Amino acid sequence: MSDKIKNAALIIIGDEILSGRTVDKNINFLAQNLNDFGINLQEVRVVKDDELEIIQALNALRKKFDYVFTSGGIGPTHDDITAASVAKAFGDNLIKNLQAEQILLNHYGKDLNEARLKMAFVPSKARLLDNPVSSAPGFRIENVFVMAGVPKIFQAMFEAAKKELEGGLKTKSMEIKISLTEGEIAKDLANLQKEFTEVSMGSYPFVGGTSLVFRSIDEESLKNAVKIMTNLIETIKKDAIFS
Amino acid sequence: MSDKIKNAALIIIGDEILSGRTVDKNINFLAQNLNDFGINLQEVRVVKDDELEIIQALNALRKKFDYVFTSGGIGPTHDDITAASVAKAFGDNLIKNLQAEQILLNHYGKDLNEARLKMAFVPSKARLLDNPVSSAPGFRIENVFVMAGVPKIFQAMFEAAKKELEGGLKTKSMEIKISLTEGEIAKDLANLQKEFTEVSMGSYPFVGGTSLVFRSIDEESLKNAVKIMTNLIETIKKDAIFS
Repeated sequence: MSDKIKNAALIIIGDEILSGRTVDKNINFLAQNLNDFGINLQEVRVVKDDELEIIQALNALRKKFDYVFTSGGIGPTHDDITAASVAKAFGDNLIKNLQAEQILLNHYGKDLNEARLKMAFVPSKARLLDNPVSSAPGFRIENVFVMAGVPKIFQAMFEAAKKELEGGLKTKSMEIKISLTEGEIAKDLANLQKEFTEVSMGSYPFVGGTSLVFRSIDEESLKNAVKIMTNLIETIKKDAIFS
Repeated sequence: MSDKIKNAALIIIGDEILSGRTVDKNINFLAQNLNDFGINLQEVRVVKDDELEIIQALNALRKKFDYVFTSGGIGPTHDDITAASVAKAFGDNLIKNLQAEQILLNHYGKDLNEARLKMAFVPSKARLLDNPVSSAPGFRIENVFVMAGVPKIFQAMFEAAKKELEGGLKTKSMEIKISLTEGEIAKDLANLQKEFTEVSMGSYPFVGGTSLVFRSIDEESLKNAVKIMTNLIETIKKDAIFS
């Protein structure tokens, strides 16, 4: 574990998300699991299955964040262009990875045709990421983890990726659910935010009230801020806090 | 309706999505509804509640696409910085919009405090977008529609935005669900894709089979491609197509 704040981005290569055919399930999974690991997800992009779009997103984000994850586009069909695009983004070439070929051979046997063998081609500098669900591996190149789009496989590959991640300081969060509206609490919340610059305070309305979410790497400050806010709310309106 | 292909992007201003606290519901709604309207959603970015991040995303996308939608960050609390960030991105200033003030006054009456009045401040060049759910309006500036993050309000504002959108050629889609795996169909699919360049063919595995999704603005080509593929699949394996 590092004593720094670690961050990450996700690139979803997803015509099927952008067309509305498929509902994304990977953002929330990754956000929660990275957070538990001490890594802050800072940006997500959903781009088309288009080489230039993938390369531009990847080159923008891999320099900006400690880790980048991609999801989608690593299957055997012609529309699976992620591996080739990632190779280009790194100025690398696709090569047949012998370990990947062996994994696919073990899985498919005599049914390992040319299309399936495509999944053994990864950038020359890549290291494989284990896929216990459907065998075809993901891969890592530098700080980029290239994973499948199918949620179950994405999740399994994340387990493999986790072994190679270095977590940083964990952001703790505390939530106060209140029956007051945002407008009733906004001024006090803003004043408290000025006092506690090391705590990030968010306010999210729902039907019947507001969630105040406080987040910080400094647990003592976090608890103090929540305590002060809790007392403040009680003075504005007794029983305003949902237990 | 235009005879061109119209496209759009979505920027989600969403610390709560990136922390994993909230599951996004706006991407799929917008994707489907734009598609029905003849507008292709081409990119989504989820960025932090951070002025610079919002400005950079907005300026990158508003030049690239016909329309940009934003969701989130237009409430009364200190963490709602979308309107100010959008104004800066356009080199504009926030001004108190008298129509918005009147709407808020009608809704809140004597409870219209300073925090709530903040929601009447929009860029000087903005036009309001109606919010029948909770009154506080969204706004439009040039090709950018600034809307709420709460799905119900986002959806209501989209109804208002729709009146100002010009739809283009509609992309039709057809799906063939088959019991074959991607690897069994990949070669034929790639060959067909080469033949029908005006049809985009995607392949999505699921447990027990594969969905082939064909999309095109040219309905005749679309139907022809699906017909050829359907026949092809029947010759590979009888009854491979799920009805």
